[in-house]
Amino acid sequence: VSTSDRPTTEFQLIQNLKSRYSLDKVGDDCAVLPKGVTTDLLITSDMLIEDVDFRLSWSSPESIGHKALAVSLSDIAAMGGTALWGMVSVGIPERLWHEDFLEKFYQGWFSLAGEFNVELVGGDVSRSVDGFVVDSIVGGEVPRDRAILRSTAKPGDEIFVSGELGGAAAGLRMLEAGERSERSAGAVARLLTPRPQLNLANYLQSLHLVSSMIDISDGLSSELTHICNMSGVGANIFANAVPIQQEVTLLYGRDEALDLAINGGEDFELLFTAPRDSIESINNFPVTKIGEITDRSGLIVLVSPNECTPLKPKGFRHF
Amino acid sequence: VSTSDRPTTEFQLIQNLKSRYSLDKVGDDCAVLPKGVTTDLLITSDMLIEDVDFRLSWSSPESIGHKALAVSLSDIAAMGGTALWGMVSVGIPERLWHEDFLEKFYQGWFSLAGEFNVELVGGDVSRSVDGFVVDSIVGGEVPRDRAILRSTAKPGDEIFVSGELGGAAAGLRMLEAGERSERSAGAVARLLTPRPQLNLANYLQSLHLVSSMIDISDGLSSELTHICNMSGVGANIFANAVPIQQEVTLLYGRDEALDLAINGGEDFELLFTAPRDSIESINNFPVTKIGEITDRSGLIVLVSPNECTPLKPKGFRHF
Repeated sequence: VSTSDRPTTEFQLIQNLKSRYSLDKVGDDCAVLPKGVTTDLLITSDMLIEDVDFRLSWSSPESIGHKALAVSLSDIAAMGGTALWGMVSVGIPERLWHEDFLEKFYQGWFSLAGEFNVELVGGDVSRSVDGFVVDSIVGGEVPRDRAILRSTAKPGDEIFVSGELGGAAAGLRMLEAGERSERSAGAVARLLTPRPQLNLANYLQSLHLVSSMIDISDGLSSELTHICNMSGVGANIFANAVPIQQEVTLLYGRDEALDLAINGGEDFELLFTAPRDSIESINNFPVTKIGEITDRSGLIVLVSPNECTPLKPKGFRHF
Repeated sequence: VSTSDRPTTEFQLIQNLKSRYSLDKVGDDCAVLPKGVTTDLLITSDMLIEDVDFRLSWSSPESIGHKALAVSLSDIAAMGGTALWGMVSVGIPERLWHEDFLEKFYQGWFSLAGEFNVELVGGDVSRSVDGFVVDSIVGGEVPRDRAILRSTAKPGDEIFVSGELGGAAAGLRMLEAGERSERSAGAVARLLTPRPQLNLANYLQSLHLVSSMIDISDGLSSELTHICNMSGVGANIFANAVPIQQEVTLLYGRDEALDLAINGGEDFELLFTAPRDSIESINNFPVTKIGEITDRSGLIVLVSPNECTPLKPKGFRHF
């Protein structure tokens, strides 16, 4: 999901606004607010807009409800937190009123919420002039001062990623090409109904070892750039170590699959760092060591068997 | 702002959805969540959509930022709470990217936020296909178990309203008729830049006397209906006691002004109840006694000098 073929102004404008107005508090996935003596409150808000973040011709109402919540749950996971409650504000165009569209949308939301004991506590329902709009808000908590930030990676730390990458980007490419088939079903499912990694996040929080963390919404290259910039460090990524969803390699071949895995967004896996040799195995969670943090601030190098190339942030979250 | 000339399906659909999915937790203005030993957390979310809730030809970007926050602050006030932080998620269409539109929007937000020490802690910025969309989220707090609900009015309680009513509805009518002038400036200001009654709410909370409260977003008749339905009570409202913004009477005459004051929305004043004779004067806050709670569940009577008529909920919040 490269941004090369689209105006950079949009991406830049949004990034400028986000940093200017601290729209992700201290640049993290959630705002962290004091809650009590023993816990901090995490809050995140994600807006999804029809024909920008989803298309009704590709997504069932259930999967839109699922994804709206999943994206916010993934933000909670990225901070090492536990999700507690959610709110959903929707704007509905007239063309969707008289169907069971919203019924199914909420079914998708509740189905995922039930898995993680997330309670619906409120929201708003408005009329919209045209597109269907969803703002998903999730609140969670984390032990006091234990939110895992982006800004605390240290040189020498090892870099890990959960699961396998590239599936969502491949799914998007297949949908855009009108090539939805059995071969692409897994990739498309990654895109439309991503799995938030809350259970892994919970386990990582309990280890007390993770030095920084972020979820992969915009793509590995972009997310690693955020960690490096905010931590004032650099990184080496070993190309051969990057876990690629098998289906993606079958669909597009090894080179393109690697590009999708590194620069494609929306996989919603976790990217995190931990001191060298501190993490041997992560229980039964599929986690892969893909590189190391260096002291070469701002420089991310993709290390392949035959060459080393600087890795630029190319990931971009959109449909 | 009567609903008589618009399809009732929209209003009903939204009300059905809200009650079905508890989109306002236990039917109140904010969700109330345990925060700590001494306080509860209040959270509210309000979505504003271009050409449904505001028009760019009527509202400056600053006033949209102001109103987005004001609406949510008013929800916090309605629970007797104190506002602490806010998030703003926006969807921006391409036509608004290259101007200083968002800059001014945030100026309006920050200007009101500064008055009440509300901190911006996050949010999201997305591209939208067409209209400008804002979701305003505000968090606040209230002493533990002291959130003032809608469901706790008691027969014999007196009914009070803050400020003066009808201004916002008259402002809307003037704008719709293209009659924006000096004569309507105050009414239009009520509509476009409403004042959240947080200071009064704070004072009322300290009195420990208020038995139920709601803010007037949909109109007095609708909001009183909410209180009566949720409390299982009825009410008498004395028509001559309803405080009407003077400008509205000058513009439309006494009878129509009363209709706008009772059925017009968006004034964002507070409607509350307290035991008989418990409240003599509310400090320097402009508060008017307008009626009394009765035990005739579900029946609201508008008492005029010459007749008593049942009062039906006609208020409708839009624009």
